[in-house]
Amino acid sequence: MKSLPLILVTNDDGITAPGLRTLIEVMNEIGEVVVVAPDSPQSGMGHAITINSTLHCSKIKISEGPQTEYSCSGTPADCVKWAINELLDRKPDICVSGINHGANSSINVIYSGTMSAAIEAGIENIPAIGFSLLDYRWDADFTPTKKYIKRIVLEALDKKIPRDTVLNVNFPKRKASEIKGLRICRQAKSRWIEEFDKRVNPQGMEYYWLTGKFVNEDKGEDTDEWALANDYVSLVPTHFDLTAYNSIASLNTWNFET
Amino acid sequence: MKSLPLILVTNDDGITAPGLRTLIEVMNEIGEVVVVAPDSPQSGMGHAITINSTLHCSKIKISEGPQTEYSCSGTPADCVKWAINELLDRKPDICVSGINHGANSSINVIYSGTMSAAIEAGIENIPAIGFSLLDYRWDADFTPTKKYIKRIVLEALDKKIPRDTVLNVNFPKRKASEIKGLRICRQAKSRWIEEFDKRVNPQGMEYYWLTGKFVNEDKGEDTDEWALANDYVSLVPTHFDLTAYNSIASLNTWNFET
Repeated sequence: MKSLPLILVTNDDGITAPGLRTLIEVMNEIGEVVVVAPDSPQSGMGHAITINSTLHCSKIKISEGPQTEYSCSGTPADCVKWAINELLDRKPDICVSGINHGANSSINVIYSGTMSAAIEAGIENIPAIGFSLLDYRWDADFTPTKKYIKRIVLEALDKKIPRDTVLNVNFPKRKASEIKGLRICRQAKSRWIEEFDKRVNPQGMEYYWLTGKFVNEDKGEDTDEWALANDYVSLVPTHFDLTAYNSIASLNTWNFET
Repeated sequence: MKSLPLILVTNDDGITAPGLRTLIEVMNEIGEVVVVAPDSPQSGMGHAITINSTLHCSKIKISEGPQTEYSCSGTPADCVKWAINELLDRKPDICVSGINHGANSSINVIYSGTMSAAIEAGIENIPAIGFSLLDYRWDADFTPTKKYIKRIVLEALDKKIPRDTVLNVNFPKRKASEIKGLRICRQAKSRWIEEFDKRVNPQGMEYYWLTGKFVNEDKGEDTDEWALANDYVSLVPTHFDLTAYNSIASLNTWNFET
């Protein structure tokens, strides 16, 4: 008999996050689940790794079910590194990250701890998918995402994710009946315009809170932002070769003689 | 008379790092220099941003020269966001990050605070370059990099960096006379194999130090790793559209019906 697929589950909102709990629940229907997730929220951590301090990981059990769970003091990328290189004695068949409380579409992929965990697995040649819901609330309703996540993971295990590609899946904040389906998209060209909220602490020292406004000037109907705004689930194949190949020719005309 | 170019300088090793000091020295020969750098080392921070805590920035002066300097409690990406959106009243003509103490070639670009600062500037439509030397030591000799950095920045100001492209420049650990020139490269396909150094603290609790071995199986002579191993300066044009365009067609054959 073929053994169950080994599924590594992680996230960036921390091991107690409801989004992670939903993902564990769906993955328990598919395979043998090992959870290694940060012990505290790690949103906005990008692809940070812990090299200047130590890492603590301990076995824990947060919710009912057959999954094995570990809580880890590091970043999402640390969790994946530790799971693959230290904890597990065989390579996971797939790594899933999320479900993130909040969007990781378009430029957010760059800042995303959820996607950095998935990308870290991808770098280590493990098929990987990040899932995010466009609802930042802790009590967001993840129910409508469940059947899509199960379908996507089963399809990924069957058809195989293209090599060096990691899937970035985002769900609109919609009821199940309102979601129109899934679209394969490109990352919309967008950015945040930051606003720094300046305050003064009780000692008279200035400090800032980083806030910002999301700006999407990319109106392409093939983008993730378009799909999400039109009630589709977006799936962007993402890679980690950052080379801008189409800039190589023009840079070769520069004069670097010193 | 044309005004001097405004140059934003940052790094990830922190405001006192000798690599940053070298970069400031070279930039003072080219334009009006504003430094906004982390108040402590931020290596391996990737594209982390500070959203769950506050940010402190203060004027400071570490070394002689005409530059203006600010020290900031955040990550490299925070420094760039704060400089552009809060501090400066005009858009910098260029943002330079580094000189990093250690390599940011190949897959290291993903974990690099130095490059995340440059990429953050790129996202905000500011021409940007990250510089790194393949020498982790605090007292590394940055002298051989100086004439290349000056040439590259002058050329970037003159010819303009292609849109949505950020330059990732790495220097081999070689004497000036040994460096053979500069090559435009692609990012080598490589990865780290992590080793977790397990220890026990005085309270009997296990903890880990993340260590690892760099593995490059990409033998292409058009890669940054090849260039550096052969005593060339490597320049990889880098972008922040992570879409794996060549995976879109095959994903469109998957069945997502739920």
